[in-house]
Amino acid sequence: MSPALENDLLLRALRREPVPRTPVWIMRQAGRYLPEYRAVREQAGDFMSLCQNPERACEVTLQPLARFSLDAAILFSDILTIPDAMGLGLSFAEGEGPRFARPLRDAAAIDALPTSVLDDLAYVFDAVSLIRRELHGRVPLIGFAGSPWTLATYMVEGRSTRDFFVIKKMLYTQPEILHRLLDKLSSVTADYLVQQVRSGAQALQVFDTWGGVLSDAAYQSFSLVYMQKLLARLHAALDEQEQVPVILFTKGGGGWLEKLAESGCSAVGCDWSVDLGSARQRIFDSVALQGNMDPAVLRASPASIEAEVQRILASYGKHTARSGHVFNLGHGITPDIDPENVSALVEAVHKHSPAYHATT
Amino acid sequence: MSPALENDLLLRALRREPVPRTPVWIMRQAGRYLPEYRAVREQAGDFMSLCQNPERACEVTLQPLARFSLDAAILFSDILTIPDAMGLGLSFAEGEGPRFARPLRDAAAIDALPTSVLDDLAYVFDAVSLIRRELHGRVPLIGFAGSPWTLATYMVEGRSTRDFFVIKKMLYTQPEILHRLLDKLSSVTADYLVQQVRSGAQALQVFDTWGGVLSDAAYQSFSLVYMQKLLARLHAALDEQEQVPVILFTKGGGGWLEKLAESGCSAVGCDWSVDLGSARQRIFDSVALQGNMDPAVLRASPASIEAEVQRILASYGKHTARSGHVFNLGHGITPDIDPENVSALVEAVHKHSPAYHATT
Repeated sequence: MSPALENDLLLRALRREPVPRTPVWIMRQAGRYLPEYRAVREQAGDFMSLCQNPERACEVTLQPLARFSLDAAILFSDILTIPDAMGLGLSFAEGEGPRFARPLRDAAAIDALPTSVLDDLAYVFDAVSLIRRELHGRVPLIGFAGSPWTLATYMVEGRSTRDFFVIKKMLYTQPEILHRLLDKLSSVTADYLVQQVRSGAQALQVFDTWGGVLSDAAYQSFSLVYMQKLLARLHAALDEQEQVPVILFTKGGGGWLEKLAESGCSAVGCDWSVDLGSARQRIFDSVALQGNMDPAVLRASPASIEAEVQRILASYGKHTARSGHVFNLGHGITPDIDPENVSALVEAVHKHSPAYHATT
Repeated sequence: MSPALENDLLLRALRREPVPRTPVWIMRQAGRYLPEYRAVREQAGDFMSLCQNPERACEVTLQPLARFSLDAAILFSDILTIPDAMGLGLSFAEGEGPRFARPLRDAAAIDALPTSVLDDLAYVFDAVSLIRRELHGRVPLIGFAGSPWTLATYMVEGRSTRDFFVIKKMLYTQPEILHRLLDKLSSVTADYLVQQVRSGAQALQVFDTWGGVLSDAAYQSFSLVYMQKLLARLHAALDEQEQVPVILFTKGGGGWLEKLAESGCSAVGCDWSVDLGSARQRIFDSVALQGNMDPAVLRASPASIEAEVQRILASYGKHTARSGHVFNLGHGITPDIDPENVSALVEAVHKHSPAYHATT
C-alpha cells in the first residue's frame, strides 16, 4: 500500500475541491536550469540514456522538490519515448533538438508501425514506480505523454520545425493516412498512460505542444478529436478506483478552450496569451485551469516575478465551490533561468494565493 | 488627378459595402516565390537596396498583378525602414533575417532616437507615388508599417528571435523606458503612414507580427494601446477626404479580436487559427475581416487549395448589409511556393465567392 499523500493540493485543485492555497508546479521543473541536473546529465551521457535509466530519472525528478516547495513531481522523461519505441531511430543532436532516422512519409511506413510498444517502455514504468516509492507520499506524481498530433509532427517531419510543411502537406493532400497514424497513436498513447497510472502516476498531462500551428478546422479534426479518443480509451481502460485527473495543454490553444473543456479532461493548461478570468467565464468553471505565467518573466527580477504572480492570481480571481487553479508557467522553463527566481515564483504563490481561497 | 479605380472591390469590402465577389490579395505577394522577382533582386543586390530604389520597388510591386487577378497591390518595402532611418544600422545577413548594429538597450539610447525621420524615408514615398501612377487605377495600392511593439522587438533584440527574452526583460523590469520607445514609435509611424497616404496609398495595413508572443495583459498595455494611439494620430492628421481604411493584423491575436475591432480600424486580419464565422459573431460584423488560409496549404495540390478556399469562404458565410471579407493568407507566402498554386487560390476565390454575395 502507498502512504497517504501529505500534500494533495494538486489533486484537490484538479478535482475543483476547496484548498487553502493555490498549488504550484513548473513545466520542465527537472531540467537544465538546475546545476544538480546538469551534473547527473553529464554522468548519464545523452538525454535518452538519462530517460532510460530509472534510478537517474528518479534522481532528477526529485531534485526540484529538494529546492522548492512545489506541490507535484512530474516524471522525468520525454514525449518522444513512444516514437522511439516504435522504431523510428531517435537521436538528439546537441543544441538541435530531436531527429528521427526514419521519418514516416507514406502509408506503408505508417501501416508497418507496431501497435503495442509497452514492453519497450518498461524503463518508463520502472521510473514511475521508483519515483512514487521515493516520494513517500510527499506530493503527487504526474505522468505524461505527447498528444497524437504533436507526436505525429515529429514522426512525419523527422525533426523540429517551425513551419510543419511536410505534415501539413500530408494533412491537406493525404488526410486519410494521417488519420490512420493519429488513430494508432491515440491507442498506443492511451495504453502508455494506463500503464503509467498502474505504475503509480496520480495525475496525467497530455502535451499538445504543436496543436496551435493548425487552422481552426484542422485542429478540431487532427488534434482535438484524437485527444478525445485518447481520453475516452484511457478512462474506459481504468477501473473506477484507478481514475486520475488529466490535464490537457495545447500551446496556442486559447481559441479552443470551450472545446478542450468538453473533451473529458479535468483541467486545461493555458499559455500566457489567455486571461484566466475570461477563460473561467468562457467555460463556466466546468474544469480546472492550469497556468499561465510567461516563462520570460523568470528572467526579470524577484520583485517583477512577485508582481506577475499577483496579477495572475488576481486574473483567476476568488475561488468558489466549483473553481480550481493550478499555478504553472504557460510553457516549459528555459535553461538560462536562475533557480533563485523560481524560488521567488513559488514563494509568491504561497504568500499571495491564500487570500483568493478564503471563505468570507 | 488620379484615374478612377477600375477595381475597387478591396476598398468596398473594407468599408463593408456590397461587392459581387470577395476581393483577394496575398501577404508578401511580391516576393521570392516569383522567378521574375528573384531576377530583379539579383540586379538590385541586397534586399534594402531593392526597397530603396523606387523604380525597382515599383517593378516588383506590379509583378504579381501581371500573373494573377489580384484585387490590390501592396507597396514593396519592409517594416524595418523606420528603425533603419532612426540610425540603428540595419543589415540583412543572407538566410538569417535582419540585424541591427546598434540595438536599443537603455533609456539613453531610446531618448536619443530622432522623432522625425520622414526625410530619410523619401524613397518610400517616391515608390508609393510611382506605383500609384503605374497602376493606372487598375486596383488600389496598400501602404503599410509595422506596429510599434513589433518594431520595438527588432530594435531592442537587435535581430530575429523566437523567445524575445531581451525585450521581455525590459518589459517586466523597466516598463517605463519601453513605454517611451513605443510612444515614440507610434508617433513616427503615424507620420510615416500619413505621408504614404499623401503619396498615393489608398488603404493601409499595420503588421503586428509579434503581438501574439505577449501575455494578455502585456499585449493590451504594450501592443494594442500603441496601435490605438497610432490610429488616432493617423486619423487626426488626415483630412476627411484623405481618410483610408486601415487593416490591423496581429499574428496569434485571435484572442483579442473584440479589442482589435474597437481600436478604430476598418478591418482585422486573422491568422488561420481563427474560425471566421465565429470571429464575425464575436465582433457583431463591426469591422471587416481579412484572411485566413494557412500558407502551408499552398504546398498542397490545386484541388486541396480549392477545397480549402471553399471551406474558408463558407466559414465566413453569407454576406449581409454590414459584412466585409477580404480573402488572404493568415501570414506571408513562403519562397518555396509554386506560382501555379497561387493561381489556383485566386481562381477558387473568383469561382466560389460570388455565391456568398448573392442577394436572394
